[in-house]
Amino acid sequence: MTQAPTERSRARRLHEKAAYDRASIDAILDAMPLAHVGYVFDGAPVVTPTLQWRMGERIYWHGSSASRTQRKAASAQVCVTVTLTDAMVLARSGLEHSVNYRSVMVFGEATTVTDPAEKAEALRAMMEAMFPGRWDQLRPMTAQELKATAILSLPLTEASAKISTGMPTDPPEDLATPVWAGLLPIHLTMGRPEPDPQLAPGIELPAHALNYRFGQIVKP
Amino acid sequence: MTQAPTERSRARRLHEKAAYDRASIDAILDAMPLAHVGYVFDGAPVVTPTLQWRMGERIYWHGSSASRTQRKAASAQVCVTVTLTDAMVLARSGLEHSVNYRSVMVFGEATTVTDPAEKAEALRAMMEAMFPGRWDQLRPMTAQELKATAILSLPLTEASAKISTGMPTDPPEDLATPVWAGLLPIHLTMGRPEPDPQLAPGIELPAHALNYRFGQIVKP
Repeated sequence: MTQAPTERSRARRLHEKAAYDRASIDAILDAMPLAHVGYVFDGAPVVTPTLQWRMGERIYWHGSSASRTQRKAASAQVCVTVTLTDAMVLARSGLEHSVNYRSVMVFGEATTVTDPAEKAEALRAMMEAMFPGRWDQLRPMTAQELKATAILSLPLTEASAKISTGMPTDPPEDLATPVWAGLLPIHLTMGRPEPDPQLAPGIELPAHALNYRFGQIVKP
Repeated sequence: MTQAPTERSRARRLHEKAAYDRASIDAILDAMPLAHVGYVFDGAPVVTPTLQWRMGERIYWHGSSASRTQRKAASAQVCVTVTLTDAMVLARSGLEHSVNYRSVMVFGEATTVTDPAEKAEALRAMMEAMFPGRWDQLRPMTAQELKATAILSLPLTEASAKISTGMPTDPPEDLATPVWAGLLPIHLTMGRPEPDPQLAPGIELPAHALNYRFGQIVKP
């Protein structure tokens, strides 16, 4: 565990579960594309789900250029939170029941990626991390499509992780309670791929679709 | 599809995917306990993961009474967002790639549950929905434990759902592109229960642990 980079990224509760090192933070971001991005509109919070991807020192997410959220978020404070639920923790008392999880919160000012070439590169990186080789099989994005896509990014300078693992931590006096205690592990798994009924004839399921696991980055 | 209850809960983008009826909203809330709650602290957004549960017309979540988040959230505007990812959608162009998902956003002013009996009843309801019969096997919560637990709730009056399903919607001119298209379904599954090494002797795995599915409410 290292020090929190800023006051607001410092864990107040359960600080023994906190981590501020980039390896811990990157591992969680790379393991779960689903992110919940918090904005403030007219003084009230708005939390929207989206997919995030990491390129080195920054995370990225995208949306429609016509979206109110994407437009208002530029240069505004955001909080991007990514959470994996690993197990339900069944303890001997109600209070000690919990969830084993890994989460990251990233705070900061969102930046809009405006350069079309940089936008195309970021989208390519997003797809390559999930489906290696797929980007080059698609027709190139048109200028209009790139224009319609808004990409936001946030540096990882103000980020913290929280990692909860292990068995329930009942106090000694509760251990003899005659109730089952332990972990119920939660996994993300993939079902059988479902081809589009309009698929052109003779197209086989590619390795990048067969091997895809939600939350598993393919390292180049 | 019905009408949005308020302006901020109205879907601006992809409004054909929006739903405002309680049946659609309840089904999503009941299918995914993980929620991301957005607060505004010092003018900036903070998004924290937590488990939510529904009791009729309201959703609830809990935390430590000592938590800054729980204390500051009382009577403040919050946004609770719940998201299920159902499939990756592989299309013929980068732009048409998407995710099939179900999400709910609930806006409003959070209320603190203060009455100890009401708190105990809410916690009991949370556990019964996940692990029927378990609450009565545990020792009763102490007054101190109840005091240490802060419960927040939010009415479902200002809520909206967004549901994205089905195959990619490529335009006709892209359909002949020689690339695989279709769905890669994502599931939440449970691993084998792991008993606590400190489990008292002679305690069998109960049905409520064996049958538990994350995101599956047990209807009484």
